[in-house]
Amino acid sequence: MVLKVSAQGRQNRQYQFVRKEEKPMHALENITYDELHEGDYATFTRSLTEEELVLFAAASGDVNPASLDAEYASHTTYKERIGHGMWTGSLISAALSTVMPGPGTIHLEQQLKFDLPVKVGDTLTVKLTVKEKGERNRVTFQCEVINHNNELVVEGESVVVAPTEKVTLERPTLPRIHIDNQ
Amino acid sequence: MVLKVSAQGRQNRQYQFVRKEEKPMHALENITYDELHEGDYATFTRSLTEEELVLFAAASGDVNPASLDAEYASHTTYKERIGHGMWTGSLISAALSTVMPGPGTIHLEQQLKFDLPVKVGDTLTVKLTVKEKGERNRVTFQCEVINHNNELVVEGESVVVAPTEKVTLERPTLPRIHIDNQ
Repeated sequence: MVLKVSAQGRQNRQYQFVRKEEKPMHALENITYDELHEGDYATFTRSLTEEELVLFAAASGDVNPASLDAEYASHTTYKERIGHGMWTGSLISAALSTVMPGPGTIHLEQQLKFDLPVKVGDTLTVKLTVKEKGERNRVTFQCEVINHNNELVVEGESVVVAPTEKVTLERPTLPRIHIDNQ
Repeated sequence: MVLKVSAQGRQNRQYQFVRKEEKPMHALENITYDELHEGDYATFTRSLTEEELVLFAAASGDVNPASLDAEYASHTTYKERIGHGMWTGSLISAALSTVMPGPGTIHLEQQLKFDLPVKVGDTLTVKLTVKEKGERNRVTFQCEVINHNNELVVEGESVVVAPTEKVTLERPTLPRIHIDNQ
């Protein structure tokens, strides 16, 4: 269930995603175009684990040595392996698909500016804020991703077609995935 | 080894990535800022399999029902499950990290426009073209992703810091990943 936290600040609504591990959530409920208001925002929090880094590389074919080769990475500016920038981008997609607006959203455009590296163990929070509602159910969201030190790591903008039909459905579950230790 | 195909057309160089399954490639070699010229392009081809779709969802937490819930998807405009738009975005990242410019590239900005859905089984080719070389080793690439029917599915632009030091290194290998059948 998407938690709806009471209004704060200038009466905009806040939606918060709580990770499955922290609180069972078996349903996805969307927020329709009509229910969205400029200034409304939602957050989605996720940590970069070793597993997620490897799965992202396997899904995309992005075997960037800066992300996967510890020896190579030790000689870079960052001194250690960093997550793929587009992994952080994928969290924005997750926030759009599962939190706000949620099921039925069609992703049309995405802008991303990568400001700071993300390291294994970092916890990121995506904040999506309704910037503008347009014609034909278009909604533009401002996207900010901050790390656990409250530093802005990625900023950008999403344009979507928001759903018009209210939907509540079971959260899809993924098959078990095993990663062999090397 | 990154294949360097002979010049064609207006003398711009073409770099082509061949999937590991098709031809063993154990090294990644970058293309430095000085070696890049406006109009040079590179391609990176990858198919959306069931496995990649599931791994992307697991890596990002993006359990979009349009991608994962066949019953739900059958009632959408697309009639069947579609890949995450950001999965296609991640292929652009893979092309930047592993083909052109390759190791040492720092991804600064990414713009994406999602034009057409991608379905399981579709084969996508990312084409990166050097659009502009700027100061401080900045390079802007035009990005086009076409499917096996030669339809444009994603277009956009990447801004990176290109590497200045020539690097050839072993292609990182991933651990074995098993996905349980459900």
